[in-house]
Amino acid sequence: MAKRSYPLSRVYGLLEPGPVLLLTTSRRGKANVMTMSWHTMIDFEPPLVGCVVSGNDFSFAALKATRQCVLNIPTVEWSAMVVGCGNVTGRSVDKFKKFGITPVPAALVEAPLIDECYANLECRVVDTRLVNRYNFFVLEVVKAHLDPACKQPRTLHHQGWGNFMVAGETIKLPSRMR
Amino acid sequence: MAKRSYPLSRVYGLLEPGPVLLLTTSRRGKANVMTMSWHTMIDFEPPLVGCVVSGNDFSFAALKATRQCVLNIPTVEWSAMVVGCGNVTGRSVDKFKKFGITPVPAALVEAPLIDECYANLECRVVDTRLVNRYNFFVLEVVKAHLDPACKQPRTLHHQGWGNFMVAGETIKLPSRMR
Repeated sequence: MAKRSYPLSRVYGLLEPGPVLLLTTSRRGKANVMTMSWHTMIDFEPPLVGCVVSGNDFSFAALKATRQCVLNIPTVEWSAMVVGCGNVTGRSVDKFKKFGITPVPAALVEAPLIDECYANLECRVVDTRLVNRYNFFVLEVVKAHLDPACKQPRTLHHQGWGNFMVAGETIKLPSRMR
Repeated sequence: MAKRSYPLSRVYGLLEPGPVLLLTTSRRGKANVMTMSWHTMIDFEPPLVGCVVSGNDFSFAALKATRQCVLNIPTVEWSAMVVGCGNVTGRSVDKFKKFGITPVPAALVEAPLIDECYANLECRVVDTRLVNRYNFFVLEVVKAHLDPACKQPRTLHHQGWGNFMVAGETIKLPSRMR
């Protein structure tokens, strides 16, 4: 996809609706990707994101050791990739090969961007105080990439056990909230 | 609305898709409600939820002092209530009166349930370690109520500056993730 740099001040608007993400890491030259949707914005700018990566996940050790990752936002067209990455572990499978995922080098971190995702957020881990208790990491988004052609991304929103809500229409309301 | 008790083990499926919430508190007999969508699941059972309530919000002091709240999930029919509660402060306005919100006593906490919302989650604050730095509270959901007639809730998902994505269709994918 043809992407452009996206302002960090607007990143919250991509994550706040709660889409399923693909989180990429890279450690010792080996990249991995996992499906993740336990995340929240914590601050606008610089954009801080809190997320849970389970200690059972292969990505946990890479994230903890390298303190870098990319949050990639897929749309419904790539649901086979999303579900596949959630069903298998990177311990035994190269998910990029298995699911035909195209890695693209990031600008500021070792973890790759996923080309098929309409948005990619390069992140550094900035706070690990709640990792031991909850597997909760605080990330700072340091660079964002977006496909400007994707105006109404049909993101996936996990409801549990194979059920996913697909993003519907966007409406405009008289809100003064940022 | 006619609601039933909802299993705590299934609460994550209501919050994980990322809906806008109405957070109610009550302090010294005075209830308040605020619009909030910076939240994430942290654990399945007991259900733990992390959320950001800004120090500028009137609800912040009540949440910190009482360590209790209710997370109410509105649908698009109640968007005027959602936007109204986000645009004004409880310091000077009784939002229940102003926006015609119906408070219902909760079972285990002082904060009221919002009758108009299809789901209500009674919560206690269980961790305040990240409050000073990020206004980030960890809540435990101690009781859940749901309107079983609401099968496909058209929840709101905030994209910033008055733009809200409305929940679309639910699809079933061959996922083995809980």
